[in-house]
Amino acid sequence: MSESAFGIRPGEVATELPPGYDAGVYFIGRIRTPWKRREECPKNARESDAACTIEVDERFARALAGIETCSHLLVLYWMDKSRRDLVLQVPRNRSGTRGTFALRSPARPNPIAASVVRLVRVNGRQLSVVGLDCLDGTPLVDLKPYFASTDAVPEAVVGWHAERDQPA
Amino acid sequence: MSESAFGIRPGEVATELPPGYDAGVYFIGRIRTPWKRREECPKNARESDAACTIEVDERFARALAGIETCSHLLVLYWMDKSRRDLVLQVPRNRSGTRGTFALRSPARPNPIAASVVRLVRVNGRQLSVVGLDCLDGTPLVDLKPYFASTDAVPEAVVGWHAERDQPA
Repeated sequence: MSESAFGIRPGEVATELPPGYDAGVYFIGRIRTPWKRREECPKNARESDAACTIEVDERFARALAGIETCSHLLVLYWMDKSRRDLVLQVPRNRSGTRGTFALRSPARPNPIAASVVRLVRVNGRQLSVVGLDCLDGTPLVDLKPYFASTDAVPEAVVGWHAERDQPA
Repeated sequence: MSESAFGIRPGEVATELPPGYDAGVYFIGRIRTPWKRREECPKNARESDAACTIEVDERFARALAGIETCSHLLVLYWMDKSRRDLVLQVPRNRSGTRGTFALRSPARPNPIAASVVRLVRVNGRQLSVVGLDCLDGTPLVDLKPYFASTDAVPEAVVGWHAERDQPA
């Protein structure tokens, strides 16, 4: 009941958010996916090979020049359905309480997700990509070329997540 | 002259930004680096093994619980010195005009940088990390655990960047 009433589970802790924002974000497009409700979303992006479509707004269309030469992109998007004040969380699918910055949970002070996607095709200002797990209609915040030289660290370890190496 | 007057180089194109922001960002801490001016910053993070310090604000300190078990983090920060309306850019160190979304340039509609760092030590709400190339005092936006399973793509290619695989 406390969960449905306040969106917070036993063991979770909220902080007081700052009185105002420090900067502003433009939504520069939308992400189209097959998933209309959170329960339908794959638990993480590697669970699905569904092609999703990133649609960039007309005013930013020219900023896509050259992106078709990239095999992979880093996509930043805004998870606008999440509360922002949780500092300790109890992931639904795992035991234990962890700090927000040790989790990939959408509930965080700035609900910006970062996902690596494979770029399949560019068609005007629509990009077909594989590797997203977000809700249909999610606002797009940024697209970046993925550089293996600086972005790929295959040996990285998340110690608390020993049993299984999938984001929670 | 046009560059100094308008901060735009021949071949670069600006768009009209939306009339207002769609969402707000909290600065959740600051990044301390050895670099006080942009000319001093390493051209990219792999050029430097300087240890930098991420200082998380007191109100978010508890959100660090468990982060000490991560070998690497994804750090999001706000590049607040950059113009946001460029869609085509001419990188200073390369020839050719490219779209903003094909570049890692700080000039972008939402000036959020994403850097992978190695976590060296956690001391209270201060994190010692290696792998940043930003100005001292840069506002922190988010910290995430880096999962090799979803975040590492060693075979990724940026086609336009054939000669040398370093971000521009």
